[in-house]
Amino acid sequence: MARWEPDAKGRLQLAALELFRERGYAEVTVAEIADRAGLTKRTFFNHFADKREVLFAGAKDFEASIVKHLTQARDDLAPIDAATAALTRSSLELAQYSDYARIRRDLIASSPELQERDLIKMTSLASAIAEALRQRHVPARTATLTAQAAVAVFTTAYGDWLDDSTADFGTLMQRSLAEFRQAVGGTRGTGN
Amino acid sequence: MARWEPDAKGRLQLAALELFRERGYAEVTVAEIADRAGLTKRTFFNHFADKREVLFAGAKDFEASIVKHLTQARDDLAPIDAATAALTRSSLELAQYSDYARIRRDLIASSPELQERDLIKMTSLASAIAEALRQRHVPARTATLTAQAAVAVFTTAYGDWLDDSTADFGTLMQRSLAEFRQAVGGTRGTGN
Repeated sequence: MARWEPDAKGRLQLAALELFRERGYAEVTVAEIADRAGLTKRTFFNHFADKREVLFAGAKDFEASIVKHLTQARDDLAPIDAATAALTRSSLELAQYSDYARIRRDLIASSPELQERDLIKMTSLASAIAEALRQRHVPARTATLTAQAAVAVFTTAYGDWLDDSTADFGTLMQRSLAEFRQAVGGTRGTGN
Repeated sequence: MARWEPDAKGRLQLAALELFRERGYAEVTVAEIADRAGLTKRTFFNHFADKREVLFAGAKDFEASIVKHLTQARDDLAPIDAATAALTRSSLELAQYSDYARIRRDLIASSPELQERDLIKMTSLASAIAEALRQRHVPARTATLTAQAAVAVFTTAYGDWLDDSTADFGTLMQRSLAEFRQAVGGTRGTGN
């Protein structure tokens, strides 16, 4: 989810990614990342709070993008539809980064501490969505539950997209949302 | 969610809780917890992987209890109803610990590192529920989405119960599930 820029931050991200792939995330130090990028540790810590953050540098931008889309969503959309539409639009802006996203997914899968950070970012995203929904005058409880549902729907669709990045992300989101609705529908809803 | 037993583990939990309340979670060391309990650091680490685990010692038992209830659930229940029923039954077994649960909630709210651990435990719980659903021959994707929904419903109901522990937990779960269904129902579902 990172934005690739030809500046110090971008060089550090690229160097980190190369090193993580070569030797595994746990084996690489911040000093080595800075060295590979031709920069200092001090510069690294000007851009990233810790080694983990290199792989989550785009999370705040992504969150801000979703909140912006949610703020601009049509008033007549139900909260869950507004949230999934915002997640879809923000994700489409990242569609060109699918190669990076797959490398990133594999790195996260390889490291419990990266998984932790990922969980925290997803929880932060859900909180931001819930807050944006409250700004749309959605009641607080509904906003929280809707945001959790939207993030679950997104996580599933995003995994699908990583498996097949030629698929249309909006279609994957709609499918995931339909499956989620079916799943929570229960005994009456599913006719089971 | 801990089980209070008059053994070393229980003494360590009690000592930790007292110290955390007196001085704040971050200020207390493992050595101080062991000392207050009249035990050694070595004994502490025989029972808990780290300081955080003192507050999550019951998580594995809770997870095992839910999986057991889920395995025993009626075949004709939809996955979401089986999962929420299992969460309800396991939670009722803990209803006597509401005072401890409130102290624990406040401690978690006070500490980012406890919040991280809590997120990880909830994710682990969702994974265990998803696996138990797959054992009931629920398709993998449905199992994952259902488990995430069930944990979101549980988290809301559990918060409600901490706010008012005289309420019936099953009623809180049903209310939370109904709200969740309404929330994900979308524009058609809600008639918005």
